[in-house]
Amino acid sequence: MKRTYEDILLVIDMQNDFVADDGRCRVAGAKSTVAAISRALASARERGWGVVYVVRAHRPDGSDAETFRRHLFSDGSGVCVAGSRGADIVAGLRPEADDYIVVKTRFDAFYATDLDVLLRGVGARRLYLAGTQYPNCIRSTAVGALERDYEVAVLTDCCSAATPDVAEANIRDMIAMGIRCLPFSDV
Amino acid sequence: MKRTYEDILLVIDMQNDFVADDGRCRVAGAKSTVAAISRALASARERGWGVVYVVRAHRPDGSDAETFRRHLFSDGSGVCVAGSRGADIVAGLRPEADDYIVVKTRFDAFYATDLDVLLRGVGARRLYLAGTQYPNCIRSTAVGALERDYEVAVLTDCCSAATPDVAEANIRDMIAMGIRCLPFSDV
Repeated sequence: MKRTYEDILLVIDMQNDFVADDGRCRVAGAKSTVAAISRALASARERGWGVVYVVRAHRPDGSDAETFRRHLFSDGSGVCVAGSRGADIVAGLRPEADDYIVVKTRFDAFYATDLDVLLRGVGARRLYLAGTQYPNCIRSTAVGALERDYEVAVLTDCCSAATPDVAEANIRDMIAMGIRCLPFSDV
Repeated sequence: MKRTYEDILLVIDMQNDFVADDGRCRVAGAKSTVAAISRALASARERGWGVVYVVRAHRPDGSDAETFRRHLFSDGSGVCVAGSRGADIVAGLRPEADDYIVVKTRFDAFYATDLDVLLRGVGARRLYLAGTQYPNCIRSTAVGALERDYEVAVLTDCCSAATPDVAEANIRDMIAMGIRCLPFSDV
């Protein structure tokens, strides 16, 4: 039953609260990457890669939310509350049976999660990042992967930010760190 | 909506696979602590403490299981598989609506989980440990709490091991580390 995947496609935070038009913390560029991520998922599965969805999910009272986001829980219904529509992965990118799901509460998908346990468990060596958004969860996770000696690539057609300027500035920094940034077609 | 709890009762691994007569990794002493833990839960809630259930849950293929336990997944149906009866918290200790649940894949409840994020989020200062078993998850979590400067007490009437000898040897070590070990009635 044990599976081995040296290559892993990570799909990060592609949830209604970040992607949908009425998302509580909408990232302007995210929706336009859904088609590219969908194609990347199909290709990754065809190549026999592992697929890991990283999703943000908070307890309803927001006790586990960042301090700067707590007001979204006290003044309203919160963001990415576990089990809510806002926390659901967007239509078009739904996980398949063999995919893994990792839940996080911060930017870095390695922080306070079992992502590294899982990746070591399946023998992962190379990570390809898709999702949103560049300055926060994508960059933090890319750096977290770098720190743990994974080979990491950021898929530029599958990642997004609030504006193109923000995306470009972060890509420049990541390339300078030694993180490959390229469209999926160039992998 | 934000809640604050300086005192937290942690109920660790009281799941069918560890407690039930047919549990895959049954701990002999665990079942006899259910009544004491149930009383501790009632008292903790009455005192306004927070309650955190820590449960082990593995992906069905066992990719996230310890190396020494992987054979339970390749040769059978695994242990504490998420969503299975074995992973369910035992009858009589079921969580209530305001309780928190933290999922882990290793002994130490702080390892690769968001337990510390949650405890900091609610302002926790004092942790009281109940569950199973002494040498593994109880001790590792007690040490993890000590390392993070929580005040930690192990509830001796609410914790268990395979034999009384194992329990006693671990209690002796933990007391020597500065971890209080006492029955709930003495808290």
